Amino acid sequence: MITSGMSLAQTNPTQVVEDFKVSSTTQSGKQYPQVNSEGRVRTSILAPQALKVQIDIGAKKYDMVKDEKGVWTGESAPQDEGFHYYQLNIDGASVPDPGSLYFYGASRAGSGIEIPAKDQDFYANRNVPHGQLIETHYFSTTTKSVRRVYIYTPPGYDKSKKKRYPVLYLQHGMGEDETGWGAQGRANLIMDNLIAEGKITPFIIVMENGSVNFGGGPRTPRPATGAPAQGGAPGQAAQGQVAQQGPPAQAAAQGQAAPQDTTRRRPGGGMGGMNVAGQFERILFDDLIPYVESNYRVIGDQAHRAMAGLSMGGMQTKAIAIANPDKFSYLGLFSGGTIAPSEIKDLESFKKKTKVVFMSFGGREGGSSRIAGVADEWNKAGIKGVSYVSPLTAHEWQSWRRSLNEFAQLIFKN
Amino acid sequence: MITSGMSLAQTNPTQVVEDFKVSSTTQSGKQYPQVNSEGRVRTSILAPQALKVQIDIGAKKYDMVKDEKGVWTGESAPQDEGFHYYQLNIDGASVPDPGSLYFYGASRAGSGIEIPAKDQDFYANRNVPHGQLIETHYFSTTTKSVRRVYIYTPPGYDKSKKKRYPVLYLQHGMGEDETGWGAQGRANLIMDNLIAEGKITPFIIVMENGSVNFGGGPRTPRPATGAPAQGGAPGQAAQGQVAQQGPPAQAAAQGQAAPQDTTRRRPGGGMGGMNVAGQFERILFDDLIPYVESNYRVIGDQAHRAMAGLSMGGMQTKAIAIANPDKFSYLGLFSGGTIAPSEIKDLESFKKKTKVVFMSFGGREGGSSRIAGVADEWNKAGIKGVSYVSPLTAHEWQSWRRSLNEFAQLIFKN
Repeated sequence: MITSGMSLAQTNPTQVVEDFKVSSTTQSGKQYPQVNSEGRVRTSILAPQALKVQIDIGAKKYDMVKDEKGVWTGESAPQDEGFHYYQLNIDGASVPDPGSLYFYGASRAGSGIEIPAKDQDFYANRNVPHGQLIETHYFSTTTKSVRRVYIYTPPGYDKSKKKRYPVLYLQHGMGEDETGWGAQGRANLIMDNLIAEGKITPFIIVMENGSVNFGGGPRTPRPATGAPAQGGAPGQAAQGQVAQQGPPAQAAAQGQAAPQDTTRRRPGGGMGGMNVAGQFERILFDDLIPYVESNYRVIGDQAHRAMAGLSMGGMQTKAIAIANPDKFSYLGLFSGGTIAPSEIKDLESFKKKTKVVFMSFGGREGGSSRIAGVADEWNKAGIKGVSYVSPLTAHEWQSWRRSLNEFAQLIFKN
Repeated sequence: MITSGMSLAQTNPTQVVEDFKVSSTTQSGKQYPQVNSEGRVRTSILAPQALKVQIDIGAKKYDMVKDEKGVWTGESAPQDEGFHYYQLNIDGASVPDPGSLYFYGASRAGSGIEIPAKDQDFYANRNVPHGQLIETHYFSTTTKSVRRVYIYTPPGYDKSKKKRYPVLYLQHGMGEDETGWGAQGRANLIMDNLIAEGKITPFIIVMENGSVNFGGGPRTPRPATGAPAQGGAPGQAAQGQVAQQGPPAQAAAQGQAAPQDTTRRRPGGGMGGMNVAGQFERILFDDLIPYVESNYRVIGDQAHRAMAGLSMGGMQTKAIAIANPDKFSYLGLFSGGTIAPSEIKDLESFKKKTKVVFMSFGGREGGSSRIAGVADEWNKAGIKGVSYVSPLTAHEWQSWRRSLNEFAQLIFKN
């Protein structure tokens, strides 16, 4: 099937290593997509009448080659270890690869692929006690709609009827939603493994949708039906009713990202002067935290409350923490810029309640050279500052999985 | 954009009603797919170089029409109310619609669409207290792998620390998996609404993957890595490691269904003489029930244990209940054939423990005319027999949502 692909590869200076295996994010029973030891993605699709078929990954398109049966096959250049969004292009149509699993990110539900990593054991689905990844719904007085939230509870949560836990509010990036940290981030598996190894104080994680109206951004009138602004996610129907025609509230914001791994091309975010916290700050304090604290066994004080996020979620963490210095004791910005002591109005007061400020970047991101210095500023100011640089990764989920793995080991220790 | 589609429609004897609205299963921010008041599905895709683009739904393909900008638009014939799998065909390639949400069924993750139904309020996401749809993992000694399971717990489960609940083991159909009842079936929302209206005794639902080795079917050697045979599902990565090359264990079984709404074309199942319970029976009794009973607050006796399933899941319910008459008190077969008193070896003993036998079909399925008579046989034999026919639906999720809604009101009442 791949003879013509082979001959093409042989004309290239770089030989493709022929040890492709079905990916862990390939659908059950499907033979493609596959990944080789170099991190190349190879996929294959029957499209007998098509004129041109490409794999679109990492902001590059790679031509596939057709065989005599009408099956197109081709592969990408080597990709970084970890998770990547991608798609196929068939005669000008950008579509998901019918062989892959689907994930919500880059402002669309679509294909994702896992490149095996040397350190993948920390997010593998191992035979250890497993916590719960809970999908539930609550009514937000801010948006006047039923909103979906994901909550991770540690192994044993349902057995210990009295024990209460610290809680981390953990945010996704732009163009992603509340499913991201569970599906692409594997946050639940990272936690299960850390807990099994006794490396962390077990805590609850709350994951909601931060892609709501931004204070300084364009506003689209909300539909009158009360349908939630957050869209559905892979495999989840959004509402029993048909949504009103017209873009939902966050469409304007999401529309800025094309359906590709665009985040790689915009290290630092490009959020300009927008008030990134915006409506989400009200949802968080007026609706979400009260809901969580009255429905889950969390310890509802600042000392046992953390906030972190990736990219836009890190910027939201910063904006919300600065505006609300009495709410969180641990802050994490994953590829989300820096927060420095000079940005805090009342540093002496901040110092009494804030225990750790954590900043990370992928080693291939520009910001990675700046965070060690800023972390030092925190240490000098009397608050523990920690920086982390993820080796050989960019603005992508492998950086954020590793960041969560590091951050989790630092918080709720005292 | 749809001018050419319009003129095509006008040449048809049937006029298409132009009241299309964005579907509830359309991705946030996308304008297509849409549905009109007739239940027609209209979608649209940019494919400038394509020669032919079709919507493939309900086992029929509908030609789409290209405009001068290279955007293809077209619509299907009216579909039944409720949920349907579908896909696009671009120059011979069958691919998901990039505008829709994705669901696992018909042996693939792919597009699904919701046609608004007159009775949709019973599965709508309403402002009522919501239970939890929990994703968790446990180790199966039968498959020697970590398996994923979904568990619904009613509102207040985490607050009442002592209350124990009855439990329903609820199975999907062929080519589907453990995500089906939550995503397409909306089982959690059906339960939340029934509980809010005081119509049922609150209970827990356990949803696992029944598509494992069938006793009488072909067996493919399991990979030696211990990777789970059940594949991933929409939005969920399966394993941190790369699966071994070659089809997973259930590929042979799943391969029988093409990636379409094939279930419609096979009312009654077509499982032949296969032992449909197979390995799942061992998983259920050796691994799953013990796991659930030791980790969730269920009442672990026959009187508080029910089993039901759709299509293949109904056949599994029947096979397992007949072979294990001491395990379940309530049985539900949704489009899964019939179970008659004559099929029970020791009817007198069965009668003491079995409270309700429920059988349902969509009104457009052949089996719908048979179940009332079989229910009567149960009533005459001294066990409550109930039949239900879903109006104007076929072998599809709307029949099964309604069946769950009916069945839930009959069980755990005494």
